[in-house]
Amino acid sequence: MPEPTFADVCLANNARYAEGFDKADVPAAPSARAAVVTCMDARIETGRVLGVAEGDVHVIRNAGGVITDDALRSLLISQRLLGTEEILLIHHTDCGMATFKDDDLKAAIEAETGLKPPFALEAFADAEDDVRQSIRRVQACPFIPVRDKVRGFLYDVQTGRLNEVR
Amino acid sequence: MPEPTFADVCLANNARYAEGFDKADVPAAPSARAAVVTCMDARIETGRVLGVAEGDVHVIRNAGGVITDDALRSLLISQRLLGTEEILLIHHTDCGMATFKDDDLKAAIEAETGLKPPFALEAFADAEDDVRQSIRRVQACPFIPVRDKVRGFLYDVQTGRLNEVR
Repeated sequence: MPEPTFADVCLANNARYAEGFDKADVPAAPSARAAVVTCMDARIETGRVLGVAEGDVHVIRNAGGVITDDALRSLLISQRLLGTEEILLIHHTDCGMATFKDDDLKAAIEAETGLKPPFALEAFADAEDDVRQSIRRVQACPFIPVRDKVRGFLYDVQTGRLNEVR
Repeated sequence: MPEPTFADVCLANNARYAEGFDKADVPAAPSARAAVVTCMDARIETGRVLGVAEGDVHVIRNAGGVITDDALRSLLISQRLLGTEEILLIHHTDCGMATFKDDDLKAAIEAETGLKPPFALEAFADAEDDVRQSIRRVQACPFIPVRDKVRGFLYDVQTGRLNEVR
């Protein structure tokens, strides 16, 4: 028998989750009226780090937790269709996005594939500075109705602690 | 005293998480060598739905769980910098992305703000069809090295069950 893939493991885990499932009546609109934007990093389990459960909050994640057009798309849909207002932006220590430069990785990809990605890779030198950049990008976006309830944080992967960035 | 915001609640929850924190040595590279792409929907607690923990898997989330340029950016960084190979694409039932049309929402935003979003909002009519569309978008992306380990799923928010889309 072939070794189970990660997807196979998830399906088995999910069968147990579904057996005890009691969330059928949880509404789509987040009860906390909030959206979180954070990094895809495997060490960040948003439910545990923030102490949230099914139905509480929208969770938007990408490489870096950066505010890209896609994050703005998600935030505008979150606010306009599902009534959220608060926005939490969370970057973290030891982030892979601080280990390369856009130009270098693009050049490496072009050397390998013949094609250069036609979009920013969004590497950053300093995670706290990029939190501030992300706050400003949200505040500058005309499509997001509520832009005065944005706070930024740095998650410390060594201590599990969330520290506010000002 | 003003009522605590959601961010305040998260900070209090996080202080408890940090007190019992024992994950300081978890590596950045996902142990499952996998990335999950799913919707920001508040009802999806990825850790519980998939039975994963800190360090297991990259989690990319946006409105719909759609494969956008930003999702491709995250996936290429996930594979090239942090060694993932498997990709799980998860949409869900009762998704807000099936409740509007791009053109209508763009027109409403333009009527309100005077500006039309210069990017796709990625609404879809059928979630399973959009899972298949997402699989094809990953497979068509020349920047992602491993494209033959992609599987798609629909998460049922009424039952907690993950069903494969073929």
